[in-house]
Amino acid sequence: MRMRKKRHFDERLERVSERLVKNPEELKGDWNRLFGNDNPIYIEIGSGKGRFISEMARLNPDVNFIAVDVIPDCILMALEKTAAVDYKNLRFIISDAAMLAECFADGEIDRIYLNFSDPWKKKKQAKRRLTHQNFLDVYKKFLKKGGSVCFKTDNRGLFEFSLNSFAADRDFMMSNILLDLHNSDFEGNVMTEYEQKFSEQGMPIYRLEARYSKDDI
Amino acid sequence: MRMRKKRHFDERLERVSERLVKNPEELKGDWNRLFGNDNPIYIEIGSGKGRFISEMARLNPDVNFIAVDVIPDCILMALEKTAAVDYKNLRFIISDAAMLAECFADGEIDRIYLNFSDPWKKKKQAKRRLTHQNFLDVYKKFLKKGGSVCFKTDNRGLFEFSLNSFAADRDFMMSNILLDLHNSDFEGNVMTEYEQKFSEQGMPIYRLEARYSKDDI
Repeated sequence: MRMRKKRHFDERLERVSERLVKNPEELKGDWNRLFGNDNPIYIEIGSGKGRFISEMARLNPDVNFIAVDVIPDCILMALEKTAAVDYKNLRFIISDAAMLAECFADGEIDRIYLNFSDPWKKKKQAKRRLTHQNFLDVYKKFLKKGGSVCFKTDNRGLFEFSLNSFAADRDFMMSNILLDLHNSDFEGNVMTEYEQKFSEQGMPIYRLEARYSKDDI
Repeated sequence: MRMRKKRHFDERLERVSERLVKNPEELKGDWNRLFGNDNPIYIEIGSGKGRFISEMARLNPDVNFIAVDVIPDCILMALEKTAAVDYKNLRFIISDAAMLAECFADGEIDRIYLNFSDPWKKKKQAKRRLTHQNFLDVYKKFLKKGGSVCFKTDNRGLFEFSLNSFAADRDFMMSNILLDLHNSDFEGNVMTEYEQKFSEQGMPIYRLEARYSKDDI
């Protein structure tokens, strides 16, 4: 999975690697020590070029953020883009979503953001979608009870799939379901690169939250 | 609420009133006796001109159907339209949805259809929407455990409201959520008058099912 299209990848990564956690599994259960505080930890899975999570980190200094992407080039770009700013509450890791239970302990993560995830449109690719039941089961391994998955996409098919996926899992309780985020009352939306592009084309953006509420029942 | 725009309403109603149940509250708990069998009972709330429920009754002779509308003229039109056909499994009642627990006993109804319900677009009208929590509480008074509410609409705002309403009620479990019914794999869809008109205009039709699953937990 390690795509190394960028030239001089290793040298460039080394230059901006201060906030890259190279062996995240070694920090399992120990992330708050790394951040040096007890603030909640929010992660974005599939952080791309990092605009969303770096803006979130800037706006929310009392929350710790971890950007996760499986593509090293994305993490490199995001690190380079944010290198000039001293974000004490932002770290980056290169990891497959399916492996994240190796990196985070039970209840260690307060919120998961999934933004404009790959829709994997073909039916036989359904298991790759980040809201497939198999992934929800992974998230439950490290999401705090009462914590949430926040999901947004421009892809109607993926949103429909995700609605059904969360609805079928009684450990999650959906709320704030929006079929047109940018024409809603939702406040404080931080846009991703994709989101800006698609919404400028007039396409509706879909959003939902799913609270991990197993212990409430 | 009795809108009597149609001329000679009473005379016309009398002519086709064989399948009209004039005092439905007197049949509470006794509907299967009226139908003369133990088949499941499905109701449509807001049956309009009756195309959907009469077609359903024709296709499903082993299910009993009750068409409910608050507007007498709608029930009259539906009765007149279906007068020529001998539907043994179809009855009509004139009732406000909020009053239906007066007509049906606990667990007496197996399925509720809500088709293209009035969206009541203004925020202050939210309580009138047939998927408002207040109505879900009414439905639970007569819906069988394991029974379902089947809802479809062309109105995005009403569908969004309904998704959130069902998601917030742990007694219901949504499934088969569709954001574009007519371009989906869904089989056996029976169209309403509205649905045909709107879908011909290329508008997506939204659909969901919500299973009353309180006893499963």
